[in-house]
Amino acid sequence: MTDEFPPGTASIAHIGIAVRSLDEALRLYHDTLGLPLQGRETVESDRVNVAFLPVGDTRLELLEATDPESPVARFIEKRGEGIHHVAFEVDDVAETLKIMRGRGYRLIDETPRTGAGGARIAFVHPRSANGVLIELCERGTGRHG
Amino acid sequence: MTDEFPPGTASIAHIGIAVRSLDEALRLYHDTLGLPLQGRETVESDRVNVAFLPVGDTRLELLEATDPESPVARFIEKRGEGIHHVAFEVDDVAETLKIMRGRGYRLIDETPRTGAGGARIAFVHPRSANGVLIELCERGTGRHG
Repeated sequence: MTDEFPPGTASIAHIGIAVRSLDEALRLYHDTLGLPLQGRETVESDRVNVAFLPVGDTRLELLEATDPESPVARFIEKRGEGIHHVAFEVDDVAETLKIMRGRGYRLIDETPRTGAGGARIAFVHPRSANGVLIELCERGTGRHG
Repeated sequence: MTDEFPPGTASIAHIGIAVRSLDEALRLYHDTLGLPLQGRETVESDRVNVAFLPVGDTRLELLEATDPESPVARFIEKRGEGIHHVAFEVDDVAETLKIMRGRGYRLIDETPRTGAGGARIAFVHPRSANGVLIELCERGTGRHG
């Protein structure tokens, strides 16, 4: 379909779920479904408290806003709690962005930026991705790479 | 937190994404993000055409309605395209349902039923699960078990 085949996608790095309360969400995912709680962290740049729960070769990231004007708070206000984004691990974020741009996809980040733990990441707009906010994470970068 | 610890959750069996058109969605997930296309199937009981794309130890299931009154068509009409459900693989669906019922979670299926490929499955209502429609799939049942 194209003469330029993109770098591969290895795995789902994580699934981000916007929740009103980490404690309440952990009652489901940790206490009831039995997922281990790897840790919690406040990510100041995104104004969220995050709980990390590994599951298979991916993990859930429960996201609780620390500020009513933050993206996660606004997401919940507009759509309610739910899946906020899905992060795909790719070989080369810059290359994937270049290919996507060439094919007319709408990007939130035109070039890779540094995410939590030093990972190279970029977001693709949900309007270009079947309603899913997609994060691209570069394999081998960052804490979880 | 409880004296009755639930059966473990092993992995995410799949992530179901409601899309208007499989062909258009495959342009993103297969042609652009490079996920392999394992196959397509029509699931008559759910009135959907499904495309299966493995990624790491889980897979995406792209869901295209075959009937404007089907659950996936109604989901898209109400909320637009996007993530429809997340399926967690658990050891024992009946046992997990029993524990969830005891803790006051709202269930869509009170007892396990048979899903695609013969798997034992049940759905939990998103109002009880932070806005996420959760499917429980019993490990070792069905085609993908």
